[in-house]
Amino acid sequence: MVKDMDIPDIVIRRLPIYARSLSYLASEGVTTVSSSELGSRIGVTAAQIRRDLSYFGEFGKQGKGYNVQFLLNQIRDILHLEQQWGVALVGIGHLGKAIVHYGGFKDKGFEIVALFDSDPSKIGSELDGHKVYHYSEIPQVVKEMGLEVAIVAVPARSAQEVVDLLVEADIKAILNYAPITVQVPPDVRTRNIDPVGALQSMTYYLDPEKNMTYRINNGRAF
Amino acid sequence: MVKDMDIPDIVIRRLPIYARSLSYLASEGVTTVSSSELGSRIGVTAAQIRRDLSYFGEFGKQGKGYNVQFLLNQIRDILHLEQQWGVALVGIGHLGKAIVHYGGFKDKGFEIVALFDSDPSKIGSELDGHKVYHYSEIPQVVKEMGLEVAIVAVPARSAQEVVDLLVEADIKAILNYAPITVQVPPDVRTRNIDPVGALQSMTYYLDPEKNMTYRINNGRAF
Repeated sequence: MVKDMDIPDIVIRRLPIYARSLSYLASEGVTTVSSSELGSRIGVTAAQIRRDLSYFGEFGKQGKGYNVQFLLNQIRDILHLEQQWGVALVGIGHLGKAIVHYGGFKDKGFEIVALFDSDPSKIGSELDGHKVYHYSEIPQVVKEMGLEVAIVAVPARSAQEVVDLLVEADIKAILNYAPITVQVPPDVRTRNIDPVGALQSMTYYLDPEKNMTYRINNGRAF
Repeated sequence: MVKDMDIPDIVIRRLPIYARSLSYLASEGVTTVSSSELGSRIGVTAAQIRRDLSYFGEFGKQGKGYNVQFLLNQIRDILHLEQQWGVALVGIGHLGKAIVHYGGFKDKGFEIVALFDSDPSKIGSELDGHKVYHYSEIPQVVKEMGLEVAIVAVPARSAQEVVDLLVEADIKAILNYAPITVQVPPDVRTRNIDPVGALQSMTYYLDPEKNMTYRINNGRAF
């Protein structure tokens, strides 16, 4: 095993995908999986999986495949997923509310426990049992609670200001839904969720003529 | 300019990020931007931007920077964003409903115009003015409408079945929210939206001790 700093971030980013696939296999009653089977499920090569896992030790015997539950437990341990993480959510607009009510985060170990907004009409109200604080209270409230993870669901124009406050509050991991690339110090991680950008990177490959036919046929052109 | 097939997908994936940043600059009244200024805003090098854009032609004069609005228009044209795209949405659970009500897709050129679910109690009902059809009607309805883009918001266990139906319906671009890697033919593009995976790839870098202190202090540890 190498030191943490030597493991490329791209490898760390693949581990949740491995965990997700292993979890699915476990739920289907599968007990053993080869690196090529696992690879074909998630669109990477067997060699890639073996190389990624080799950063963390030996997880399978040559020719025997991996024990699904054992490998899953190991990856969950590496990623610190054996505990529930408290999360601060900034931005309680349509998107923020959808995130609070979604439920899929808590199931997977991320519990939203602190809410922030800048709209005076929302400050002091409660959502899902949690009081909504003003942005300006981020450093104090987040530090007091000892949180390390935040989700940003504010408009682009407010995102950097909010991120600066989260950094001041010692947040080290930020999931950013705002359509802007935010600046953070080297010890803070960010990941962007950008479904519109994902769609826009696919329309490049599509046929605009066919779409125009659709639009005319459905009264949506012009 | 090179042929479409020669442009790496990773370049295409960066174009929406460039467009987003240029759009922001335009809204701020900025008329000219250098590749290094644009790069520092989105966390890539100036050389990377120049190399990416060189696939599509010449967009700036040496030492003069880019005209923000011209470059934005060019990228939007390359990505086929000058028209509204019709989108099929499969899965009208919590997540699907949040996507329908979100509004951020339509603003950016993606209009959800066909809805599908497998829950008998939802079939035939209306959401946002659109009738909900059963999965089994995907090939017929989607083909009739001439759609090329779909969003999948179903549970992992149904995702591959739904994707197979979308492929049968000639859908060529799939935004997948299901926590599973789906299999598609080479002429179909997929992008995954996986906020839980994104969070899980950051907790690796966090301090579990600090989180445990948070949990004990806040009555969440057992």
